[in-house]
Amino acid sequence: MIIDCHGHYTTAPPQHDAWRQSQLAAFREGRPSPDYPAISDDEIRESVEQNQLRLLRERGADMTIFSPRASAMAHHEGDERVSGEWARACNDLIARVAGLFPETFIGVCQLPQSPGADLKASVAELERCVEMGFVGCNLNPDPSGGRWTSPPLTDRYWYPIFEKMVELDVPAMVHVSSSCNPVFHATGAHYINADTTAFMQLIQGDLFADFPGLRLVIPHGGGAVPYHWGRYRGLADMLGQPPLSEHVMRNVFFDTCVYHQPGIDLLVRVIDTGNILFGSEMVGAVRGIDPETGHYFDDTKRYIDAAALTEAQRVQVYSANARRVYPRLDQALRERGR
Amino acid sequence: MIIDCHGHYTTAPPQHDAWRQSQLAAFREGRPSPDYPAISDDEIRESVEQNQLRLLRERGADMTIFSPRASAMAHHEGDERVSGEWARACNDLIARVAGLFPETFIGVCQLPQSPGADLKASVAELERCVEMGFVGCNLNPDPSGGRWTSPPLTDRYWYPIFEKMVELDVPAMVHVSSSCNPVFHATGAHYINADTTAFMQLIQGDLFADFPGLRLVIPHGGGAVPYHWGRYRGLADMLGQPPLSEHVMRNVFFDTCVYHQPGIDLLVRVIDTGNILFGSEMVGAVRGIDPETGHYFDDTKRYIDAAALTEAQRVQVYSANARRVYPRLDQALRERGR
Repeated sequence: MIIDCHGHYTTAPPQHDAWRQSQLAAFREGRPSPDYPAISDDEIRESVEQNQLRLLRERGADMTIFSPRASAMAHHEGDERVSGEWARACNDLIARVAGLFPETFIGVCQLPQSPGADLKASVAELERCVEMGFVGCNLNPDPSGGRWTSPPLTDRYWYPIFEKMVELDVPAMVHVSSSCNPVFHATGAHYINADTTAFMQLIQGDLFADFPGLRLVIPHGGGAVPYHWGRYRGLADMLGQPPLSEHVMRNVFFDTCVYHQPGIDLLVRVIDTGNILFGSEMVGAVRGIDPETGHYFDDTKRYIDAAALTEAQRVQVYSANARRVYPRLDQALRERGR
Repeated sequence: MIIDCHGHYTTAPPQHDAWRQSQLAAFREGRPSPDYPAISDDEIRESVEQNQLRLLRERGADMTIFSPRASAMAHHEGDERVSGEWARACNDLIARVAGLFPETFIGVCQLPQSPGADLKASVAELERCVEMGFVGCNLNPDPSGGRWTSPPLTDRYWYPIFEKMVELDVPAMVHVSSSCNPVFHATGAHYINADTTAFMQLIQGDLFADFPGLRLVIPHGGGAVPYHWGRYRGLADMLGQPPLSEHVMRNVFFDTCVYHQPGIDLLVRVIDTGNILFGSEMVGAVRGIDPETGHYFDDTKRYIDAAALTEAQRVQVYSANARRVYPRLDQALRERGR
């Protein structure tokens, strides 16, 4: 079985994004948000069948852990109310996809974060979504969208959401959204920087002493971290922290959204395969075909298949780790005899 | 011959840093800066002989392209006047090191950048330093120290310094300083993020159409870039840019400050060796010994020696590329028959 831990609904029906635009326009003009538009099951089916579902079949994966489009979360837009409405609309749409294709998609939710706001609304939305069958959340370490005004993830500011995650036994993928700072290209700089930044915060702090059961997935292959693994091992040592295997890597996992063979080869060479979850973020940041291979850049299964892994390690990466990190996914699969 | 393109004077005599502290205190209190302290040649000799010079000999390198301590540039402190005094003090000290050890050290200068200030003072300081025999500069893409308030490097804001660099035929290493934003650990996040961010800006823009002779060294192995080389090739394609080899890699070079063998192996597998300059940043960010190897993390020569390179490629990485990217270094070496 092959589970893709990193899929976003980047192909939602156009009414959904149009509503967001009119919601933000209403906010700017001081008007109430418009009513959310009607979207039929057929429209949802079509948006998925032509895209993610087709590609899953072509590439040979079975399931996707599916969340709202990350770049559209845009927590820096509007205010907390606006983020709350938008998160609910996005998550409800994910719930419908998962309801229409329960064998293929299972939900991870967007949180209604907002710069400066506390995390009460995020805690409530996470609870609501888990009741709908979601198995995790996307946590934005920079809701200011490239201004980086929130405290580090090890700060007590974040503890309410971590407490709820532990209580519900769901992990978070640490995933920023678009950037309103022109220095940071969203998918080419802000995403990768955030991954790297979050990991270094976890080295500096001691978050998992307070939350031994907390699990965080750092996407995009862990940002720069595996490439600079010696630097991070050395910095942990200089900061007087325990080895990374004890200090961080019991709780932190990297996905495989690294879009070429040498990157994946490095990832599996450096990082214990128990910490690697298959992911593609497909129909996402990089949608083209690599002229060097003739295959899609984001067809990461090809790289994993070609990597120097034992069969047992490949099972870890393709499914076993995901079932361990997302226990509610495992439970849902078991209930279906999978 | 082995040239380390990335060394900072992290071991300057203590009076130097003490003066900086009193300079900043005077600025805060509205007083004029104190006089710069006396530092003897012997003190400078000792600070280098016990550290960089000893390690260069032990590790088997010949020369270091030497610049002021990057983390201490702190362009976000004080104002433009304060940055100007500090840059001159730091650069004068580098000139003294290079004067005392002309066979081993050659200078690269710190620029008197300041958030919001134009680059006139930086242009003047670069000219002054090149007259003293310096061969390049360190350009901080974020003088706000982690607030990222400057425009992207492709913005015309930066053109005056690029024009002067081209005129003087000197390259810049794109190197941030310390971070005053608590989310970013300096050497574990801010440095690497800045490398990644700068590279993506160069993909988005078309800087080298305006400056075909401009050369930029992106340190720390290019940040996250080589690990995510497929992502960057794919993003360039999505943005309608030419292949990276034409669009960026005629003008951009990565150093080898990657502190483990797998990282260096990836770097030389992915990046043309014509674009890789040997560097260690030794006595810098990561000063410990790797328990996995028994050698210093930043003894990057060991990784290059062990990498899958031909002898001709190793010559490129160890010296030929540096002599090409820093023509004034090449000229100085030729004048000495090296």
